[in-house]
Amino acid sequence: MLVVQKYGGTSVADAERIKHVAGRIVRRVRAGDQVVVVVSAMGNMTDELIDLALQVTDDPDPRELDMLLSTGEQMSIALVSMALRSLGEEAVSLTGPQAGIYTRPTYGSGRIVRVDTKRIRRELDAGRIPIVAGFQGATEDQEIVTLGRGASDTTAVALAVALGAARCENYKDVEGVYTADPRIVPTARRLKEITYEEMLELATQGAQVMHNRAVELASVYNLPILVASSFVDAPGTLIHGGPLMEERNRVRAIAHDTDVAKITIRHVPDRPGIAAQIFEPLAEAGISVDTIVQNASEENLTDLTFTVSRKDLRRAEALMPAICQAIGAAGYTTDAELAKVSIVGTGIQTAPGYAAKMFRTLYEHGINIEMISTSEIRLTCIIKKDRVEEAVRALHDAFELERSDEIQGTD
Amino acid sequence: MLVVQKYGGTSVADAERIKHVAGRIVRRVRAGDQVVVVVSAMGNMTDELIDLALQVTDDPDPRELDMLLSTGEQMSIALVSMALRSLGEEAVSLTGPQAGIYTRPTYGSGRIVRVDTKRIRRELDAGRIPIVAGFQGATEDQEIVTLGRGASDTTAVALAVALGAARCENYKDVEGVYTADPRIVPTARRLKEITYEEMLELATQGAQVMHNRAVELASVYNLPILVASSFVDAPGTLIHGGPLMEERNRVRAIAHDTDVAKITIRHVPDRPGIAAQIFEPLAEAGISVDTIVQNASEENLTDLTFTVSRKDLRRAEALMPAICQAIGAAGYTTDAELAKVSIVGTGIQTAPGYAAKMFRTLYEHGINIEMISTSEIRLTCIIKKDRVEEAVRALHDAFELERSDEIQGTD
Repeated sequence: MLVVQKYGGTSVADAERIKHVAGRIVRRVRAGDQVVVVVSAMGNMTDELIDLALQVTDDPDPRELDMLLSTGEQMSIALVSMALRSLGEEAVSLTGPQAGIYTRPTYGSGRIVRVDTKRIRRELDAGRIPIVAGFQGATEDQEIVTLGRGASDTTAVALAVALGAARCENYKDVEGVYTADPRIVPTARRLKEITYEEMLELATQGAQVMHNRAVELASVYNLPILVASSFVDAPGTLIHGGPLMEERNRVRAIAHDTDVAKITIRHVPDRPGIAAQIFEPLAEAGISVDTIVQNASEENLTDLTFTVSRKDLRRAEALMPAICQAIGAAGYTTDAELAKVSIVGTGIQTAPGYAAKMFRTLYEHGINIEMISTSEIRLTCIIKKDRVEEAVRALHDAFELERSDEIQGTD
Repeated sequence: MLVVQKYGGTSVADAERIKHVAGRIVRRVRAGDQVVVVVSAMGNMTDELIDLALQVTDDPDPRELDMLLSTGEQMSIALVSMALRSLGEEAVSLTGPQAGIYTRPTYGSGRIVRVDTKRIRRELDAGRIPIVAGFQGATEDQEIVTLGRGASDTTAVALAVALGAARCENYKDVEGVYTADPRIVPTARRLKEITYEEMLELATQGAQVMHNRAVELASVYNLPILVASSFVDAPGTLIHGGPLMEERNRVRAIAHDTDVAKITIRHVPDRPGIAAQIFEPLAEAGISVDTIVQNASEENLTDLTFTVSRKDLRRAEALMPAICQAIGAAGYTTDAELAKVSIVGTGIQTAPGYAAKMFRTLYEHGINIEMISTSEIRLTCIIKKDRVEEAVRALHDAFELERSDEIQGTD
């Protein structure tokens, strides 16, 4: 079986961990599998390199920043390959360009356009373990381009797809995907498997485990991804599009996000074009708007509320007076102390009772719901930030997530 | 005028120094010159990377070590280029491979086989300042190879030769080449110019200023090299093969080296093949032998003395019993507390009086001469290490090196 293994920055943070990772790879290879390895930069290396660049200039040129940042992964691949060789395995480190990862010439946020697997195939055929630098590729002119933060996950999935690997294995400092944040819910269980869609709906919580771009790419090609710990031997969580998708109907996990601020515009005239007048200036300022809720209008006046990341609140607020004046609204209010809590699971929207149970649970704990938003497989309530941990625990209990799921839950 | 400027590790050791170097480059470009820049890794980066490799394995694979070490220069070029761009100049960093520096596939000690200047020319024609990574190149298969320690100097000279540059300028933390080590001789003067041959004979002292391989390469192509400080604006020392070579006849500088140990083999039978029996085992053990002196033989028995680097003495000594037995010598003695002191200058061997003056000066200071060796332009005495500073000062005085050389000396 050919697998692509990806090791994150924490897993290769120092010489000892690199030797530990090498030992894991060797065991896998000696068990008879073909392995292609993708590694991130060591520990906080990428942040340290960005700091260095900012000491030189407060506006680093994007091409030169990529030239600088790509050294982080180049160090890791060399060290992992050395460690494997010292264990008696043939290994060969490959930069993104050497590994045939071709990208668009958009420095700092390259998108992979093709993977030329010739070199990797040649190394595999010669019995060598290719150790590929994540996060980087080359343009057709051999210019070095990085793929954006966290994109080593994407490198691993793209290689696995291009090589026709059986699966991509993503080794991290967590043991997999949990039914809720284990720091908040002590009874949270690791999920044995999860669908691509559920994974994406876990949002922040899921992104800490696996980068969204990588999950989306795997979803398109139906490539299974195993997320597991690089420190302990444990089964991890398999992310896949599997046949179980339509067969179950339940809440899989409780997600939460405490980086939520809201702005409410009061007494907005309810006429066409208003939404554009509100949200275009925000988009031009690079501010992402998350949930938008508009109440039913009375007498052609409505209240419109939207949420932004807390870091963007001040900049969004600065735009509000002009926006309110332009649309003839009465004014606006803000609240920076909010959080999202979500129940995630395929089919929960079409099945009855989940929403009611969520609202009742929060009500029984005296937690007020400020806003509600939904997707096919997610139901989110926005509540006060200081109640979010209680809400997560209450919902985890109410939906009995501590119980093993016999059909396809945890092991 | 097209010039290649090389900045060493000390000159780009941190963000402040990188900005300072960028300022120097900008002034030169705005004065109307075309500049190609070669940079080393920042400060002690290369040593730190080697330490990291040795934490992973005590015998790093040479290919992987080159993959690791080449990141040092890649960081520097990105940062210097960023700094130049922040000053409003168009600059573009190029790795050794991108700059078209092709080497033999001998990892860790690559020799440059050709320089494809197409990319650099294209950047120059577009008005950009190419910032090239020293110390590295690529094989025809785009494998990364480093050129050995200190070889950024060689990169700079090779680029200057390939581009037909007017000269190579090497900016360091010293102001040039001196008549003696200024830490020992306060009256030591910076030389305005020096020939390639004299520079090479300065040995250790010269190598701290400019790598020998680079001087030899410049000598072959008759490329002038300016050595100057990157910290202060001062004229530096021009190394060249100039027309003055035959016109003068004097001691140019006093060199010294305290890393000298000697081994004397006593009562060596004086017959053909003996030298091979002594020095072949040493060569096989990778021990470089420097000066060799054999006294005139009496009754077919002679004493043979040679010097090695102090770090090699123990390993050389371990080979001695077997060597003495093989050649039938009486035994051996060692002395690790020695030093070399040399007078260097074109023509001193053929001109009378220099050797006599050197010997008399040492004698007048009560300094015993243990061994003597000579070259066309150098005369070296091996003396006790604890007398070397006194010897350097005495010779600097005796040959009046503190006096300005009106023909072509210092400015």
